[in-house]
Amino acid sequence: VRRETYDRTTDPALRSWVQVPPGSDFPIQNLPYGTFTEAGNRPRIGIAIGESILALDVAAETGLLDDACPDARRVFAASTLNAFLGSGRAAWRAVRERISTLLDAGDSTLRERGIAGSALVRQRDVLLTMPLAIGDFVDFYSSLDHATNVGTMFRPDGEALPPNWRSLPIGYHARTATVVCGGTPVVRPRGQTRGAGAPRYGPTRALDFELELGFVSGDGPLPPAGIPVERARDHIFGVALLNDWSARDLQAWEAQPLGPFLAKSFATSLAPWIVTLDALQPFRVATPPQAPPPLPYLATADDETYDISLTVALLSNAMRARGSEPAVVTRTNFRRMYWSMAQQLAHASSNGARVRAGDLFGSGTISGATPDARGCLLELTWNGQRPIALAGAEPRTYLEDGDEVVMNGHCEREGFVRIGLGELRARVLPALDS
Amino acid sequence: VRRETYDRTTDPALRSWVQVPPGSDFPIQNLPYGTFTEAGNRPRIGIAIGESILALDVAAETGLLDDACPDARRVFAASTLNAFLGSGRAAWRAVRERISTLLDAGDSTLRERGIAGSALVRQRDVLLTMPLAIGDFVDFYSSLDHATNVGTMFRPDGEALPPNWRSLPIGYHARTATVVCGGTPVVRPRGQTRGAGAPRYGPTRALDFELELGFVSGDGPLPPAGIPVERARDHIFGVALLNDWSARDLQAWEAQPLGPFLAKSFATSLAPWIVTLDALQPFRVATPPQAPPPLPYLATADDETYDISLTVALLSNAMRARGSEPAVVTRTNFRRMYWSMAQQLAHASSNGARVRAGDLFGSGTISGATPDARGCLLELTWNGQRPIALAGAEPRTYLEDGDEVVMNGHCEREGFVRIGLGELRARVLPALDS
Repeated sequence: VRRETYDRTTDPALRSWVQVPPGSDFPIQNLPYGTFTEAGNRPRIGIAIGESILALDVAAETGLLDDACPDARRVFAASTLNAFLGSGRAAWRAVRERISTLLDAGDSTLRERGIAGSALVRQRDVLLTMPLAIGDFVDFYSSLDHATNVGTMFRPDGEALPPNWRSLPIGYHARTATVVCGGTPVVRPRGQTRGAGAPRYGPTRALDFELELGFVSGDGPLPPAGIPVERARDHIFGVALLNDWSARDLQAWEAQPLGPFLAKSFATSLAPWIVTLDALQPFRVATPPQAPPPLPYLATADDETYDISLTVALLSNAMRARGSEPAVVTRTNFRRMYWSMAQQLAHASSNGARVRAGDLFGSGTISGATPDARGCLLELTWNGQRPIALAGAEPRTYLEDGDEVVMNGHCEREGFVRIGLGELRARVLPALDS
Repeated sequence: VRRETYDRTTDPALRSWVQVPPGSDFPIQNLPYGTFTEAGNRPRIGIAIGESILALDVAAETGLLDDACPDARRVFAASTLNAFLGSGRAAWRAVRERISTLLDAGDSTLRERGIAGSALVRQRDVLLTMPLAIGDFVDFYSSLDHATNVGTMFRPDGEALPPNWRSLPIGYHARTATVVCGGTPVVRPRGQTRGAGAPRYGPTRALDFELELGFVSGDGPLPPAGIPVERARDHIFGVALLNDWSARDLQAWEAQPLGPFLAKSFATSLAPWIVTLDALQPFRVATPPQAPPPLPYLATADDETYDISLTVALLSNAMRARGSEPAVVTRTNFRRMYWSMAQQLAHASSNGARVRAGDLFGSGTISGATPDARGCLLELTWNGQRPIALAGAEPRTYLEDGDEVVMNGHCEREGFVRIGLGELRARVLPALDS
């Protein structure tokens, strides 16, 4: 399914006049969107390039983006991406092309206008902030390996997969208020668990990460029209790493019959940079075969996914004290996901539900076929029965206070420039005193 | 648990200079909040009084609410209640007292300022609009009668209640984008159902209403601090009728293992008027006994609910053609709910989850002990096995196209003036052609 239409913005020969270190996640072929704040000021919209950020409010207020995006000055003066997400695919594409040109080694527009200095800030001088005001957040369960592992673990004598699993992308709504930007520490939650004899309330004893990829939408059509699967990609702006923190002991007690609630709602970490579908285009690959074939409303010839290598690493207090690097515990790839983003979005709106610019959709835990490709500790330790060893032989079943979870993702393909998703990192803080 | 502290705003002797017809839901003792629009203009905030609305932007811009609410002019110039909800309980109380005085028969301030005419609009001249920008929407499952009926229906050989039901208020997150204001028609959703042999996709054949009461919150404390149960009422602004439309055939196929998703997310109807806890105060009653006693984080001496009589009525196309009134199919009362709003809010934030001004919480279907007190057709018809008869002996299992669902609620108590929640009404439109 490789679409070999030439796209100037992903041409490997492109170079920027902004310095980009070798191996950077953010070459000129990437151009991901985020928001940042300096010294407590209002967050501003920017695009990552190398170790810098191009401030789009500065670029827009000179009129340089007027042709690319209706109302560009207002859209890029905002503190979140929502207005830009609401501008739609044509504007997303036109702004990308314009920025790609403005940052091209052969272009001197920003310097001629005298704003090359003010429009570029160093990433290390700013704080990256939550780039979205999320409308609704839907989390899916779309990895066949993950669902099979969980089913095998909890229903050892039954079918591993729920009967509906291959017929629809199972999903549920999650809490938007507690989605936080990568870097924000996560406090160990308290909650109710089954206990011995009677339920108890206290700090979770089974805090887990979940490696996911989130995607961000533009506006859907007016309800009750849904988004047809073959048009779904037009409504998807881009993707970011997502850590769907989970308290497994709370989840085991609360989640039947209506699904996970407090086991997930205490925190979800979203990576600060949203990588656009345009940047991912060279890394499109076919989704795995689906059997039985999906119903017509989920079936499309245009059903592709992306080859994105993903890792999760852990850094404990003991490792930090020794000066160790985070230890990789998971190596997997997004391309193995059974249900595509297009199918997820078409399904989520197939009943006429309204989709808004700034909605967030999580893939569900991304696991792979091998034990080292499992995307959460529940699977890696088989529900705590088989601890894994970090560097220095330190054992882990679930997360300890002080543990830092570090997620990374990147795309590589011969003939194209490597791009990355940026790092998603957050540390676990002890529970509050009760 | 009657708290007999005298409150001037609910004194039955109060009369307004605005005409209030006998039996109105909106005497001066009520003063519910909503938003309205005239002729396509921007929505404005108002308070219902009799058959009129007091426009709070007009009252605020003269400075009359400055003492009661910080930044009153900005707060009441908005098109939703969110900024006012964020002002907190002290402001909610002070504005109520001020409006109660301004509308009192003995007060002539509005007339003296020359704004009695411009500040009052007739309800029949305006369109009531969605009063909130909802942050997160949590739906509970807190009626013992409802949960018992559902459990008996679907697990005839097992325990009717899930094992966790009496230990915590079961809840899940629902979609905010498709919460619509009462009056908005609801299009029959399409979706995937089990089918015979293979799943099918098409219009639901089991469209249901659910009678619920929603409550709206102010801001909670900064995370990870939760809202203590004994302080939860301070964070609850008021209540409104809620119809949590459900497609039972979609729900049966999709809802395991992660809970309801598309069976609920196509539409939820919220009544246009939010009735404050202050107005409900005379109708406080004790919650039913809880056994086993709740864990300390859910236990409080201040654990009360409200005596609110509720009805659901249906009006079919055939009845409408005959000029019939809607036929009442459900008569129940909110006071029987097992888990209180305070317990629901404390539980929802007990893991440190952030609660924001404008969050919506649904009670879950409100049923009672008798067959005519069941709050949805699933229970009333025992999953379609025992059709009910509307006026003219017209049978109903689930909703037909053209059916209008009409919900009402009111509070009565000797020595106090009756107040109502206003009507929540919406009609079912046929599914779109595929």
